[in-house]
Amino acid sequence: MLCQAVPCSADGQQAVPCHAKWCCAIPSDAMPCQAVLCCAKQCCAAHSGTVPWQALPNLSTSPTGGKRDTDLILPINSSLSVTLHQDQLRTTTTAAACHDFTEDRLWLNGEEVDAAQPRLQACLREVRRLARKRRGDDAAAPLSLSYKVHVASENNFPTAAGLASSAAGYACLVSALARLYGVEGELSEVARRGSGSACRSMLGGFVQWHRGERPDGRDSVAQQLAPETHWPELSILVLVVSGEKKAVGSTAGMQTSVDTSPLLKYRAEVVVPERMTRMARCIRDRDFEAFGQLTMQDSNQFHATCLDTFPPIFYLNDISQRIIALVHRFNAHHGRTKVAYTFDAGPNAVVFMLEDTVDEFVEVVRRSFPPDSNGDQFLRGRPVGTAVLPEELVSAVVVDPVPGAIRYVLHTKPGPGPQLLDDPSQHLLGPDGLPCRSA
Amino acid sequence: MLCQAVPCSADGQQAVPCHAKWCCAIPSDAMPCQAVLCCAKQCCAAHSGTVPWQALPNLSTSPTGGKRDTDLILPINSSLSVTLHQDQLRTTTTAAACHDFTEDRLWLNGEEVDAAQPRLQACLREVRRLARKRRGDDAAAPLSLSYKVHVASENNFPTAAGLASSAAGYACLVSALARLYGVEGELSEVARRGSGSACRSMLGGFVQWHRGERPDGRDSVAQQLAPETHWPELSILVLVVSGEKKAVGSTAGMQTSVDTSPLLKYRAEVVVPERMTRMARCIRDRDFEAFGQLTMQDSNQFHATCLDTFPPIFYLNDISQRIIALVHRFNAHHGRTKVAYTFDAGPNAVVFMLEDTVDEFVEVVRRSFPPDSNGDQFLRGRPVGTAVLPEELVSAVVVDPVPGAIRYVLHTKPGPGPQLLDDPSQHLLGPDGLPCRSA
Repeated sequence: MLCQAVPCSADGQQAVPCHAKWCCAIPSDAMPCQAVLCCAKQCCAAHSGTVPWQALPNLSTSPTGGKRDTDLILPINSSLSVTLHQDQLRTTTTAAACHDFTEDRLWLNGEEVDAAQPRLQACLREVRRLARKRRGDDAAAPLSLSYKVHVASENNFPTAAGLASSAAGYACLVSALARLYGVEGELSEVARRGSGSACRSMLGGFVQWHRGERPDGRDSVAQQLAPETHWPELSILVLVVSGEKKAVGSTAGMQTSVDTSPLLKYRAEVVVPERMTRMARCIRDRDFEAFGQLTMQDSNQFHATCLDTFPPIFYLNDISQRIIALVHRFNAHHGRTKVAYTFDAGPNAVVFMLEDTVDEFVEVVRRSFPPDSNGDQFLRGRPVGTAVLPEELVSAVVVDPVPGAIRYVLHTKPGPGPQLLDDPSQHLLGPDGLPCRSA
Repeated sequence: MLCQAVPCSADGQQAVPCHAKWCCAIPSDAMPCQAVLCCAKQCCAAHSGTVPWQALPNLSTSPTGGKRDTDLILPINSSLSVTLHQDQLRTTTTAAACHDFTEDRLWLNGEEVDAAQPRLQACLREVRRLARKRRGDDAAAPLSLSYKVHVASENNFPTAAGLASSAAGYACLVSALARLYGVEGELSEVARRGSGSACRSMLGGFVQWHRGERPDGRDSVAQQLAPETHWPELSILVLVVSGEKKAVGSTAGMQTSVDTSPLLKYRAEVVVPERMTRMARCIRDRDFEAFGQLTMQDSNQFHATCLDTFPPIFYLNDISQRIIALVHRFNAHHGRTKVAYTFDAGPNAVVFMLEDTVDEFVEVVRRSFPPDSNGDQFLRGRPVGTAVLPEELVSAVVVDPVPGAIRYVLHTKPGPGPQLLDDPSQHLLGPDGLPCRSA
């Protein structure tokens, strides 16, 4: 982003935020960005931003593959992901620092949670370290690094249900903190310290998270393989089957996997490197059939290693299994891979397809999982057209419908990285540094 | 078995079976055996027997591990199993041959099915080949090998729901055919031609199925590691969660695995050989904790390779997953492995434990899955005592009960191999060679 901050003056004693215009080089379909920023000395400073959710087309790592170092959050294998568009799925975060704050505080979806948690503190420490390095001995820096921070964050999506909420959350947090302290440049390494896969959410489009070789993790960073504009026909449906929290947090789960699953080790060392190369080629060539097959195979293999963990971890439930079977019947009927599922650490499906398949597949989903009561809210996100299904498609693909099993379907597409918010009404902290609205 | 047949005379033209006494060396807890056998020339002959079901404590192979040769049914890895006692779980089969029969016919659970299926015919061919070899040029042999056969078979348990029904079925079929044609000796290789794992059901107690090295499969046979009397405290509960047919037949499923799962290959070549050695030692030493852990890990890994298959195969459903979680909570509460699950190609659980744990665990199961309407039929098989659960056990282990999710619990233990039936009323074919009662 090409951003210029226009610092404002403020009363040094009062935590009164003031507005600063930002200008950004952003894709035309992203919202223009502005931020509330007050950077006078001894004053509070606030920043708001949205950060995209991510979908993992394959080769998931952390949280979806285990870590070789849990402190630095280094993955045991590299991974690829697609960043989802924040028009549909997003985290919004506002961060503020002020000499009046007596402690670090954190609100998630309107509820205050423990801000002393090590990962949040690790991110704070890293951002401050970068700020210190940047400032050098400039004692006149606008914001003291010793101030406590307040952070409020909200998701417009179920938290902790296998849709990478912590990845989006930490990516957004790090973006907000970095702007708060005037830090620029490569931040994926910092985001990784919060939640491994957050480093991938720091970039838009198609992103690779390099495993890296260095023990200090400096080379375990994210890199954009292709921007979100690279493959405009690629469409994504998120099938939300459950908003329940998953039984095992993905970090705890994956650490057990590294320790107990012989198959995970083999996967990381032998299977993934070869698949990474193939997947990058599929994306480069926009080869949907190969992309889809590999995406499904790798999602399945990830969940296989979860099951090989002891005690085993189950992220897929009966409805996930039905979605998988439905996708295979749909592809079998068409004689080729037209849709492809992937599941992260939860039961919700992310389904890829080309634009010309969306209407038909959505209708197949609607017939297979007839909406219960929320018929008008069943489809969310980007518009979906109507489709009349041929009778032979219905009889081959729609078997044994389960009403109400899918709560809603969200239509989205690949999107850009973190964005600044231009609408002050969306900021989550008020002039007093406290949440100004509940989730 | 040490059996002596006393041939009887019969009208050569009429298919009238007559009785022959058999004497067998069998464990005291097995039923005494007798068989209906008519072996006069040109007459029909019938044989009835029961064959035990098997539980796979680990290292499942075929159908649970893929085959290296689908025609000969050679497994890609060796395996161990525990044969379950036929007092509780059994297949009963009657076979007859007669010059009046115009075609091979087969009835399964009272319904006629296609007798031309290749596996049935392979077993028939093999048994006849052995009979021919044994008879040499004895043209006076009592039963022509060119007669067509009638076979009726019944299970007292859900078919095709991952409880090795085809293993028990083919083991029983081969036992019956062998006695029909007077073939003795090692028959596990013949049973393997029907259903790979049937070779294990030809023996009682703890059985190893050797992978074998020969391309012709002659060394891929079953061997008894220890008789069923070796570990008298070992108890087994079968938790029947669904009688539905599984979505993918295990043979079809496993062949896909061999072709598409990189993890299955690694498992077969690297993981299983080491685990086989350890498991045999656990059984030898009657080390329940080590036996239980390895059993669970290997069950999970088998299902992991099913998931790594493309398209993936799911045998475990939500209730299976709940049983797994329950077992781990139970063990965690006790601070050691007191119960251990294993799942074959279906959602039903086989749970191992020592005798002194049965009452308590059954009560935990009853509290976790309260019986719907069949309260009085919820517990089947061997008797189970009552148990009063400590409050702290209930609160730690019984969470979120699901009424009616388990249809019934069958209490059994390791048992002997195939047995001959002494009760003529249990024979499934009448004097006319047709089923004399429906399933």
